[in-house]
Amino acid sequence: MKATARAHTNIALIKYWGKADAKLRLPLMSSLSMTLDAFYSDTTIERAEENSEFYLNGQKQSGQAAQRVFNYLTLLQEKFDLHDPLSVHSINHVPTAAGLASSSSAFAALAAAFCKFYQLEVTPKELSRLARLGSGSASRSVFGGFAIWQKGTDDESSYAYAIDETPKMDLHLLAVELNQQPKKLSSTQGMKDAQSSPFFTPWIKRNDAELKEMVKAIEANNFTSLGELAELNANEMHAINLTAQPGFTYFEPNTIKAIKLVHELRKQGIECYYTIDAGPNVKILTPLKNVKDIEKNFESQFNNVKIVNASFGPGISYLD
Amino acid sequence: MKATARAHTNIALIKYWGKADAKLRLPLMSSLSMTLDAFYSDTTIERAEENSEFYLNGQKQSGQAAQRVFNYLTLLQEKFDLHDPLSVHSINHVPTAAGLASSSSAFAALAAAFCKFYQLEVTPKELSRLARLGSGSASRSVFGGFAIWQKGTDDESSYAYAIDETPKMDLHLLAVELNQQPKKLSSTQGMKDAQSSPFFTPWIKRNDAELKEMVKAIEANNFTSLGELAELNANEMHAINLTAQPGFTYFEPNTIKAIKLVHELRKQGIECYYTIDAGPNVKILTPLKNVKDIEKNFESQFNNVKIVNASFGPGISYLD
Repeated sequence: MKATARAHTNIALIKYWGKADAKLRLPLMSSLSMTLDAFYSDTTIERAEENSEFYLNGQKQSGQAAQRVFNYLTLLQEKFDLHDPLSVHSINHVPTAAGLASSSSAFAALAAAFCKFYQLEVTPKELSRLARLGSGSASRSVFGGFAIWQKGTDDESSYAYAIDETPKMDLHLLAVELNQQPKKLSSTQGMKDAQSSPFFTPWIKRNDAELKEMVKAIEANNFTSLGELAELNANEMHAINLTAQPGFTYFEPNTIKAIKLVHELRKQGIECYYTIDAGPNVKILTPLKNVKDIEKNFESQFNNVKIVNASFGPGISYLD
Repeated sequence: MKATARAHTNIALIKYWGKADAKLRLPLMSSLSMTLDAFYSDTTIERAEENSEFYLNGQKQSGQAAQRVFNYLTLLQEKFDLHDPLSVHSINHVPTAAGLASSSSAFAALAAAFCKFYQLEVTPKELSRLARLGSGSASRSVFGGFAIWQKGTDDESSYAYAIDETPKMDLHLLAVELNQQPKKLSSTQGMKDAQSSPFFTPWIKRNDAELKEMVKAIEANNFTSLGELAELNANEMHAINLTAQPGFTYFEPNTIKAIKLVHELRKQGIECYYTIDAGPNVKILTPLKNVKDIEKNFESQFNNVKIVNASFGPGISYLD
């Protein structure tokens, strides 16, 4: 008896950047994401002989990475009064080269494989809540296309749902890796520190309006509105960090260079927008027709840049 | 008959970044500055034979730079019902290498030389108002040490005054030139665009409190508070720009590198803070004992960096 689930990573266009409850992973704001076809995690769960074990890309893990998985499995088991030692095999199809975090797909796949393994009958909403307990952004990877993670007020009400699982929008995301150095500041720490910014509260107050505007752009199939708002929201997140007390930034010199290149491309009529998460790399939003031009421009301006072209990915699927 | 005045440049620690009235140069916020000893303008006014003329560093000027000076002189003459063609000779002791704007010292010296030439009896407050009409920041260069430009509500009430013309604080400003490329976005345009940021209004609302806190730091001779608040205020200004619609930035890749170096120096116990104006260069605030260490660090991390060490400068003086 084993169960395998696949979940795709997602990139937030309206960011999650602040915890209301660290243990329950309740956020201070609702977020909205695009699930990507190019990056995913496959996770298999079966009963272990003695002790739980975790293999990532074929390598047995120990230390923090394994402990986070075991803690999460224990948390899930306690919810359902289950007690077996489990063996987890996970393959991350999220190349480091993409400069993406894999925790959204990893914990969504883990939650789904867990439910499948125990034949728990959970709705997508319930699965999203369970995934959230592993990693906040994993709540959104239960769904394909565009998804909203509504912040909610407790464990029951904080979950993601799909807006449109098969969007018509001509939208590609280029994951551009500018910098291979590991980030020095974790997301968890950055989120905490960001709350000391005088602009944090004004930002939170805008969350509902930004979310509504983004949903409107999606419903109207309006790439320009979506891109402008995604870029603004990312800038807001990084402006919050810069104005924390003391200020900090995930930007590296090349991040500024990339931002200016996006501005320059737009001036030339190549419509594209950027979003940036808790790291130095940028993700470019653009319609298919501009992908090659943008790749060429980045490749000519940066040494050893790595670019992965992604579009909409599906929600959770099961492989056996 | 001729008159020569000297005015020193100033750097805002609480920034002026928004106009309430472009013609009268009334600001949307009050600002606070440090006048610098290392950079100044000497300006001589005498009667011209036929047409007004403007010489900068010995070179006769034409075009925009000259026109701005002539327009300003006409404005001043109209106020006092004067009509002579004037010859203006200005020497800017503000090396381009410092990455500083010279308009604060230039228009303060010009206003002072004008009043001296015509033997107009103006108070420092009145001189500050006249200087403001040439360039907003020039209002502060009438005074030495620390000065506040109170925003006011009209031409009468918008002027600068000294907080402390001979401060006891052990405070140096290192003007660090990272980038010799001319900036692509003027301050005037940047100020306009910045107002589309969702954080602009929240920032303006903080102006009174920030000003009070900065005055308290100065009165208490508290370098740490002054530095932290100056850095926060500069970060706020650049966060506003980043979140304008569309966002823009005066930062260049080296600006990010410099910001991270300041963070790193602080971690090592070398206390210093940065402020950044409408350009890519940084100014470092630090006590005298750290100046050499900071210079050494910047020189080893940047190619062809130019650093000028400044401390408190005096207000207007007259040279003949």
